Amino acid sequence: MSALQNRQARLASRPVGVVKPENFSFETHPVTSPGEGEILVRVLYVSLDPAMRGWLNEGKSYIPPVGIGEVMRAGGVGVVVESNDPAFQPGDHVVGMTGIQQYAKGSAKGFTKIDPKFAPLTTYLGTLGMPGMTAYFGLLDVGALKDGETVVVSGATGAVGAVVGQIAKIKGCKVVGIAGGAEKCAYATGELGFDACVDYKAEDVRAALRQHCPEGIDVYFDNVGGDILDAALANLRRGARIPICGAISQYNSTTGVKGPSNYLSLLVNRARMEGFVVFDFAARYGEAAQAMGRWILEGRLKAKEDVADGGVDAFVPTLNRLFSGDNFGKLVLKIADA
Amino acid sequence: MSALQNRQARLASRPVGVVKPENFSFETHPVTSPGEGEILVRVLYVSLDPAMRGWLNEGKSYIPPVGIGEVMRAGGVGVVVESNDPAFQPGDHVVGMTGIQQYAKGSAKGFTKIDPKFAPLTTYLGTLGMPGMTAYFGLLDVGALKDGETVVVSGATGAVGAVVGQIAKIKGCKVVGIAGGAEKCAYATGELGFDACVDYKAEDVRAALRQHCPEGIDVYFDNVGGDILDAALANLRRGARIPICGAISQYNSTTGVKGPSNYLSLLVNRARMEGFVVFDFAARYGEAAQAMGRWILEGRLKAKEDVADGGVDAFVPTLNRLFSGDNFGKLVLKIADA
Repeated sequence: MSALQNRQARLASRPVGVVKPENFSFETHPVTSPGEGEILVRVLYVSLDPAMRGWLNEGKSYIPPVGIGEVMRAGGVGVVVESNDPAFQPGDHVVGMTGIQQYAKGSAKGFTKIDPKFAPLTTYLGTLGMPGMTAYFGLLDVGALKDGETVVVSGATGAVGAVVGQIAKIKGCKVVGIAGGAEKCAYATGELGFDACVDYKAEDVRAALRQHCPEGIDVYFDNVGGDILDAALANLRRGARIPICGAISQYNSTTGVKGPSNYLSLLVNRARMEGFVVFDFAARYGEAAQAMGRWILEGRLKAKEDVADGGVDAFVPTLNRLFSGDNFGKLVLKIADA
Repeated sequence: MSALQNRQARLASRPVGVVKPENFSFETHPVTSPGEGEILVRVLYVSLDPAMRGWLNEGKSYIPPVGIGEVMRAGGVGVVVESNDPAFQPGDHVVGMTGIQQYAKGSAKGFTKIDPKFAPLTTYLGTLGMPGMTAYFGLLDVGALKDGETVVVSGATGAVGAVVGQIAKIKGCKVVGIAGGAEKCAYATGELGFDACVDYKAEDVRAALRQHCPEGIDVYFDNVGGDILDAALANLRRGARIPICGAISQYNSTTGVKGPSNYLSLLVNRARMEGFVVFDFAARYGEAAQAMGRWILEGRLKAKEDVADGGVDAFVPTLNRLFSGDNFGKLVLKIADA
């Protein structure tokens, strides 16, 4: 194995505001053999997600921050190169927390075998991965969706939002997306089957939601926070639920988070806003994967990945596309050819 | 009846910011006889509540705003003077929406008989009235309180807060109040039996909550909004619930409501913030009154009313004491001697 070299992105310093390339150290180290119960995986694609920005901050959160000097945490898919666990053979495709690097070595327990014939590898980082699980449990459990309700989702063509809206359609709901730009909105209504999509870069979101949801919003699935959350709060229906999945508009803020000034709409409308973390539903991932796998096969759930090239060294500029809205579909970074 | 004169406070204009006396017209009109199914009530005490400020604003809320020219809406207790309903006799004591006036005339269905021997009349506007119901259902139903949890309540010596904290103590919880001034805090810990009380006028609330609730807050019952809500959000325990009862710090704002900038703590802690309106629990008021009546008799639930003099004409300055924090206990305005 000594001939293999492993390019890695290691955290060098904690970013303030937007992440900069100099916050990471890009290093090459020789690959070492896996120990007892471990496997070595050649990484093919890694998942880039808004939550990564939070992992770079010091302090209490739902998981510990990435430590200075550590390989950047990331989900990824790859192929087993060497295995010291009987459940895995070289050539198996797997998904797990590979990190931003060319070779991931770790306990076999941290990886799951996937079938590249069932869906493209990248889909296991999107609709069949954490974003899909987040959409499924956030909408159905935290959002307590009932058939036929009116659902609004921000980040509507993103990794989570696109799945949220499509599941809501499958459940017979009226779905209004919020996305940035005419192209994304056309995709939401044309390809994903949403009933409407509000272009927040061109429209008054509050007025547009009032127009599209004249009886109010039953479930607003929030990926973005900020002014769009306030616009949704201004249009709630009685008994509305707001699963708080993220707040991408606020993650790079250096002046503090903007709180939702319309939060008293929760009182008037007897509504609730509830945060969640997908890892809490780990015991039920199988249930979600089964349901979503079936919908994919039936052609009712479409997956779109935005695959960026450039490998490990392109990590930072590619990640930042999430925050400028310059991605279209689930963003993944290609690390190597299959 | 023609000899009786009725002094009334009628809304003259919608206030901007703090309510001013000139927003009301104080008028005297002759009393007219009740119609079929109606009763005439001589008002003795009226309830002054933070929610009144919201009723003066135009626009959508959980009940219509008070109309220009209408008698100011208020709960009150009084004595029946004349009845055209067989269920009520002159001399009966009743509670209902009397409005800010000396004589209230309306459908008998809108009034409930009360027993002045069981509790002082003013207690039917506080612990045994809407504030008590608000505390009971907000804490136990919306807050989904479990025995032994850690509860924080703002406006801790106010009409709702004092009942919230006492019920939580009855349920075996640790209770930390937040109130303004040493006297109120001493009352909360000394008389009401709270475990601690943070004086927001003298202490760093966030740091004090961290000290008093080292494992985090399970239920934060919010009456005030603003910076205190943010301080509580910064100290949540996993799975916390925040019943949103009101936001007295924000009601007179002319620059817009301050949203809770720490709301992403809901995500990290898988917590929820939920608004409610006590009227939704009307079918279960009997259950709450029975429980709270028993606790009062057992000496476990203390009621404190702050009775202001001055009658109908003192309405505005007395109401404004709620917003300066210059009341101590449930604020009621005396309209006439019993």
